[in-house]
Order: sequence, then C-alpha cells, then structure tokens
Amino acid sequence: MVDACRDIAPHELDALATGAWILGTGGGGNPYQGYLNMRRLYAEGRRVKLMDPQSLADDDLVAVVSTQGAPLVGQERLKDPEVCARPVRLMESYLGRRFRAVMSVEVGGSNAFQSLLVAAVTGLPVVDADAMGRAFPEAQMTSFAAHGLTMYPLTLADIRDNEVIVARAERPKWMERLSRTVCVEVGSVAATCKAPRTGREVKDCAILHTISKAIALGQAVATARRTHADPVAAVLAAEGGIELFRGKVHDVARRTTAGFLRGSARLEGLDGDTGSLFTLEFQNEYIIGRHDDVVRVTTPDLICLLDSESGEAIGTESLRYGQRATVIALPAPPVLLTPAGLELVGPRAFGYDIDFQSLFPPGAWS
Amino acid sequence: MVDACRDIAPHELDALATGAWILGTGGGGNPYQGYLNMRRLYAEGRRVKLMDPQSLADDDLVAVVSTQGAPLVGQERLKDPEVCARPVRLMESYLGRRFRAVMSVEVGGSNAFQSLLVAAVTGLPVVDADAMGRAFPEAQMTSFAAHGLTMYPLTLADIRDNEVIVARAERPKWMERLSRTVCVEVGSVAATCKAPRTGREVKDCAILHTISKAIALGQAVATARRTHADPVAAVLAAEGGIELFRGKVHDVARRTTAGFLRGSARLEGLDGDTGSLFTLEFQNEYIIGRHDDVVRVTTPDLICLLDSESGEAIGTESLRYGQRATVIALPAPPVLLTPAGLELVGPRAFGYDIDFQSLFPPGAWS
Repeated sequence: MVDACRDIAPHELDALATGAWILGTGGGGNPYQGYLNMRRLYAEGRRVKLMDPQSLADDDLVAVVSTQGAPLVGQERLKDPEVCARPVRLMESYLGRRFRAVMSVEVGGSNAFQSLLVAAVTGLPVVDADAMGRAFPEAQMTSFAAHGLTMYPLTLADIRDNEVIVARAERPKWMERLSRTVCVEVGSVAATCKAPRTGREVKDCAILHTISKAIALGQAVATARRTHADPVAAVLAAEGGIELFRGKVHDVARRTTAGFLRGSARLEGLDGDTGSLFTLEFQNEYIIGRHDDVVRVTTPDLICLLDSESGEAIGTESLRYGQRATVIALPAPPVLLTPAGLELVGPRAFGYDIDFQSLFPPGAWS
Repeated sequence: MVDACRDIAPHELDALATGAWILGTGGGGNPYQGYLNMRRLYAEGRRVKLMDPQSLADDDLVAVVSTQGAPLVGQERLKDPEVCARPVRLMESYLGRRFRAVMSVEVGGSNAFQSLLVAAVTGLPVVDADAMGRAFPEAQMTSFAAHGLTMYPLTLADIRDNEVIVARAERPKWMERLSRTVCVEVGSVAATCKAPRTGREVKDCAILHTISKAIALGQAVATARRTHADPVAAVLAAEGGIELFRGKVHDVARRTTAGFLRGSARLEGLDGDTGSLFTLEFQNEYIIGRHDDVVRVTTPDLICLLDSESGEAIGTESLRYGQRATVIALPAPPVLLTPAGLELVGPRAFGYDIDFQSLFPPGAWS
C-alpha cells in the first residue's frame, strides 16, 4: 500500500455504516448513531486518518477499543466521543506509555465507529483492521485470543465518572466475566480499551484491512441502490456470499439478560421459499439458522439478515413482525475457522452441541 | 504513647480474636480463621508490629485492607496471606509509591486480622486504628467517607489470578457497587486494598486505637472466664454497654444474596425476660433489634449477640436454634453519630424508615 495513512473521506462514513452493519450479523448495535456522531465531528472540521497496519512499527502500541454491552441499551443514548476516549487515556496513564494508533475490536456493528470516535478526539490514526472481522457478543471472541495473546489489562469507563481497570484475568473467559459484570452494573453499556497490542501483534494476529472491506461493501450496496440493481445480490457478489432464505418476519422472542440480547426470530417463506420456515437464534448476533428445523448455518460463518428491498442489515434489536427479509451467509475470516478459533466462536462456545460445518470452501474469505 | 511501635504478643492474638468478634456485631466473619493463620505465621517466627497512628508522618501512605464478601462464603476457605497482600502490591504498582504501614478497614470480625496477615508477609507495621470501629456490610460505611474523603482507587484480587482496579468512582456508593459486583462475580469473597490514606488522613479521620481496644476487650472476657466471673458482664463493664435481652434462639431465617447474608433471628426470653420475644434483623451485621415488636436498638449503636455462658460472640452466619444468648448494645464511635455518619450507617442506609436514637449519652465511646 503506497498510501500508508490517508484521510477517511466524508462519503466513506456513510458506506462504513452500511457495510459494518451487514458485517455485524445482527449484533454490535446499529452503526447509524456512530455515523451521525462522525458526521458532526467532520462538520466541525475534524478528520480521521486510516492507517495500513503494515506500516506499524513492531514496537508501536495500539489501543483496541469498543463499547461493550447490550445493543438495545446502546441504542438509547448517543455515544459521547469523550467517554469513548477516557479508557484509552486511562490505559496510557496505567501503562505509562502513549499509543501510536487506535483500532476497533470488531468491525461489525457500531464498534466500527468506536476507533473513529476515539481518533477524532485524540488525533490518533485508525488502524485498518479489527479482531473479529464481524461482531461477536463476548470480549474473548477475538483473533488475538485465538492466537493465545494475553487479554489483560483492560480499562473501562461509563458516562458517569466511574473507571475500572481489570489488571489481570486468569483466563480470557475471566476477562469477559469481570468486564461484563462491571458493564452490567453501570447500566449494560460501557466504553472499554482492551489489552494493548504491539504493532507486531496487530500485523500477525489481527484481521487486516477490514475497515476498507466494510467501506467497499457499503459502497457496493449504495451503487446497487443508485442503479436500481438488487442490493442483496450486490452484497453476495462483493463478499462471495450465499442466499439462504427469502421471507417475512413472523415471530420474534427477545429478552435482555445479563448484558446480552438473546432470543429467536422465525421467518415465513416468500417467493421460492413459500411454505417453509427459517428460524434465527441470536445472542446479540445471529448464531444459528435452521431451515424447517434443520440446522443450515452456524457461527462463525456470518449469518446476516438483510431488508430484501434495500439490502440494509436488520439487527437483532430491530427485528419486527412483517419485515421482508433475506437470510444470507458470508464467509468468515480464516483465523476463526482454526481449532483455536472454533473453540472461542464455534457453536459450542454458545451452548449448542453442534459441529461447525462451513458453507464455504477454504479461501472464500478475502 | 512512648512505645510508638511494638510487637503484638502471641497471647494478644487470642484476645484480638475474641474482642474483634464481639465488635463485629454479628458480621465481618468469625476472626477465628485469621487467628489460626496468625498462630501459624507466629510459629514460623514471624512477628507483627502495632504502630500508634500518632507516630505516622503526615505524608506517609497507609494501605487500608479488607476481605470483602459474604461471611458465610469466607468461612469456607482459610485466607491465604499472600492473596491478602496482592491488592496491596497492586496498589503500590498502580500508584508508583510504597506504603509505610497497613491498617484494617474494620476492627470488627475477621478483617481485624486482615492487616496482620498482610503485615506478616510484607513486613509493614499495623496501624492501631480502623475506619468503622466495628463491622459494617458496605465499603462506603467508613469514617473516611463520613469525612468526605475520596474512596478511590481500590484494588481487588481473588484466589485465582484475577486483579481489578477501580480507578475512579463517581460517589462512595458507586465504589461499593463496582467492587461488590466484581466480588460477587469471583465467588463473593475477594481481598481488597481500599483508597490509600496519608498519615494525616489516618490521624484526622480514622477511628484510633481500636486494635488495642479489641485486644483489651478480649482480655477482659478471658479474665472473667478464668476467674469464673460473668463474661457478658465483663464485656458490658469494659465497653460501658447495656444488656437488652437474655433468651434462647428460637427461629432463624437466613439467605445469601447479592454478596450479603440477610435475614432475621427471634429469641424467646429466659430468666427475667421470660414470656417476651426479641427479634434481630441483619445484613451481614445486626442492624435492628425489636423487643416484643417495638424497636429497641438500631445501627450504628453496636448490637452484639453473646453466648450467655462464655461471652463469645455469635455471628449471623452461625446462629442456630437453641443457643442461649444475650443481646447487648455497646456505644458507637462519635464519628458515626454525626449527620454525615448517620447518613452512611444509620437505619435509613439499610432501608429502615426509622430515626436513630442512641441508647447512650454523648461521650460514652472510649
């Protein structure tokens, strides 16, 4: 990449919101609020730089940021960029070192904008990478954990004046438990800075160029809409995806519990799928898809629900009766398909006694 | 005090266990395990120094330590002194400063020995003071909070390898909520190091000479037992206390919930109290006492339940049918009786719509 650090253009923010919401697989929260936030910051003259991860020095330090919590709760309040930056500053003070750049823990959903919001108020560039290549509900479900990297320390701040540091966690799952319980206590939403990563760790263990990927995906949808082509087909073409079911949302069961949004949705078939049913089960994100009660697709393959007309993603918190929607699957980043990856994010990590079988051949993700 | 720093003698450990358990007002956990721990450490040749708080320099830094959690859970595992010391070392590393001494947040119950355990493995002296003069269930119920001192940062460690720092808390109650939720998550018991205090703050805002007080109280009980005098009368004489009821434990309702041991106990009268009932309500500690359904005594006056024969304290976790027991009240430290103190530890802080009326005249505490 010749242009190792470039400004993110204003029109790319819109595309990022669309693409990140699709890659969110129903979870991670709608990026629309983050997009509005960034539009305002751009209107004030701020600009955010996107940095190629390959241009990081090995000993650079990168802040890995996210908003943790239940998407439904996150929807109720616009994020404050200063609150997003507080755990980053707390981490710098805790480590006694400054960060070179900031990256989002997940490109899927609203956290795609988390690094941009932090970047806009700190001046740090955003690394073109993430640690999930999509969205996942739990903090340890990352490519860093799949590579066995230490998941602590973590810093956390809420909208009040509460700040917590998880200095050590015995295992990645303990990091999730400790940060989650604090997050729930402060209202099921908190800004976090995950374990700092060196430039070397990012280059070796992150999922690279996923911000660019989300922008390109959003642009494909926008182009299809503008040219009256099928946006769902454009998503499938851009990502090498598979259409699984086309129907109408018929039934939604949803509850917010222990910091998660859990439930299921049933779609009745339309068009070629008339007479059959498709059930999506979710834990923030869509985890399992069943066609007429037969398992058709499971995590970590990306299970996305799109508005059949606009190609816009439909999140687990905004599912409602009558939506015309298409279930599609997109390939997952290879690191998630390794034994270590599947242990963290395969069906069993979500309590399903099901073996993962990808719908895609090796090398499908790009 | 001429002898500003002296060794705690082996026989004083026994007296401290007895006295601290009485001052625990039913909560804080039985100090017996801490006593066993210290006996072993003393048998290995370790010695702990008791330091007069007046000999602290104004800018000395004092570690304020406790085990936080439900007493019933704490009873199930002997404390590891190394675990007790971990939050102290984490705090030193977080602050980039060394502690001059260590003190217990509460002299009542097992936390009386917390500072001794830390002292035995770190070599720091124990300050002859605490921040409650008894035991209380919540972290913000301290003389430091009554003086308006900041309650953060706090460090916390569990028996695994988990370590958490609460770097900032908006209000003292938020510190309690954040540390409590982490404590519950790691199994309802955790070692903590509270907000560090300067020597000046300890001298001005702690409750002074309470370790000595607990030792003297325990020695009074031991002397009464040895001379076949009445140990309950010896406690009343030593502390200027009042006997409220003598009876038999008839009914106990107890549940461990949200990190607390809550419930009530009913005593049937014996001796002069035959035919009447006394009810104790507790939240780790005894909070309210009712004689024939009329409120007779409330927190922060110390409500203690003693074995009528031995004068040994009976904790809320070891109450059982048939115990011959005497309810007594002891005067509370003056700082708890101020408006700021009563806001933190009066009946309303425990959810009772009752005005506090002390059973004692001003100046009763010594």
